[in-house]
Amino acid sequence: MRVLYELAGAEDRRFSPFCWRARMALAHKGLEAKFEPCGFGEIKAKVGFSGHDRVPVLQDGARAIPDSWAIARYLEDSYPDRPSLFGGTAGMGLARFVNDWTDRTVHPALARLVTPDVYDHVSPEDRDYFKKSRETRFAMSFEQMRSERPKHVPNWMTALAPLKATFEKQQFLTGEIAGYADYILFGAFQWARCTSPFQLLDPDDPIYAWRERMLNLFDGLARKADGYPV
Amino acid sequence: MRVLYELAGAEDRRFSPFCWRARMALAHKGLEAKFEPCGFGEIKAKVGFSGHDRVPVLQDGARAIPDSWAIARYLEDSYPDRPSLFGGTAGMGLARFVNDWTDRTVHPALARLVTPDVYDHVSPEDRDYFKKSRETRFAMSFEQMRSERPKHVPNWMTALAPLKATFEKQQFLTGEIAGYADYILFGAFQWARCTSPFQLLDPDDPIYAWRERMLNLFDGLARKADGYPV
Repeated sequence: MRVLYELAGAEDRRFSPFCWRARMALAHKGLEAKFEPCGFGEIKAKVGFSGHDRVPVLQDGARAIPDSWAIARYLEDSYPDRPSLFGGTAGMGLARFVNDWTDRTVHPALARLVTPDVYDHVSPEDRDYFKKSRETRFAMSFEQMRSERPKHVPNWMTALAPLKATFEKQQFLTGEIAGYADYILFGAFQWARCTSPFQLLDPDDPIYAWRERMLNLFDGLARKADGYPV
Repeated sequence: MRVLYELAGAEDRRFSPFCWRARMALAHKGLEAKFEPCGFGEIKAKVGFSGHDRVPVLQDGARAIPDSWAIARYLEDSYPDRPSLFGGTAGMGLARFVNDWTDRTVHPALARLVTPDVYDHVSPEDRDYFKKSRETRFAMSFEQMRSERPKHVPNWMTALAPLKATFEKQQFLTGEIAGYADYILFGAFQWARCTSPFQLLDPDDPIYAWRERMLNLFDGLARKADGYPV
């Protein structure tokens, strides 16, 4: 029995970018799983058995693997006959860089734009925690973040500039076939898609076309998730 | 006969980051070449035979290949029995992203810090061209750039943040063995090393340790080049 413990918001909306990395990795490997929802306040109780206190956690038989990167590594090592997530050791090293770049460049720039919208999709019982923790992190109220949003759009476009150049030349970060590096990056866009109506990309942006390709993968897995049409 | 046409400054200093990408790629493949110096003003005359007007240009027998990325692709395709630069198609796709990221994020942040120092190593006959074109690009004099340098250091550190995280966990961008993605990035650091005494990295920065490993590759190829000890 395989279970992916995921963050869940109001009306079971699954918006965690890290959980989407794991979900796309499972789909890439063609592995089925039960997707167990955890509200912010339920995480410890639900995944405590694993010795961890954050999601995603993948339970695969007797094993419990925390952390999206460790899950991808585990799947690659444990299911070597399925399609490769990394495409070899060089691809794995470079995916690690894409992971660090996404966490440190894409996520902070995107969080400035969508965090107040995420709030609307957090479960009522988690909203106080979410508002307090995020307003502290950004040192301003959600109201102020919303009003300052236009000011942060140029920074978002600057962060994306290298991606735009790459997707002018190739279909996916990993070339002609999507790989785990694409799932890392896509998690950020899916986080936004599940929570915010804010338009992040122009339709004529090569990154928009890449996101469409990602939404189409695995029979439209990510497109079917509750979110805002983009 | 194999010839790499490279940019050369005063006293034959070879500081072009793009030429260093090609030079390291040749070394990775274990291929010998003649390294032909071209001052800024000589480029057209020297590589015009190839139909191109920029360096690097690699001449390999009857073929002439311009552009560092095209040279790496050519070497990988033409010498498949030599050590791989990309480590497969996923690695090649991701190296393309590192190329775009380096060109659009690392180079602009670094150019703010070192361009006035580069001037000191440009050949006397090229200095007017270099000063005019760069002062126009940055819309300020070299004197002003120097005085504003401290202001741009935080932006440089922000650009490097993902690299720092990656090199805390692995030896090279491509994992345990350096690959073309490392040479792309290293070109930027070698450009600075050949032209500027400005200290770009703290010795306890994991990126510093990576740069040391790069300087040691191929029997110290890059360390032996004229430059500032770092």
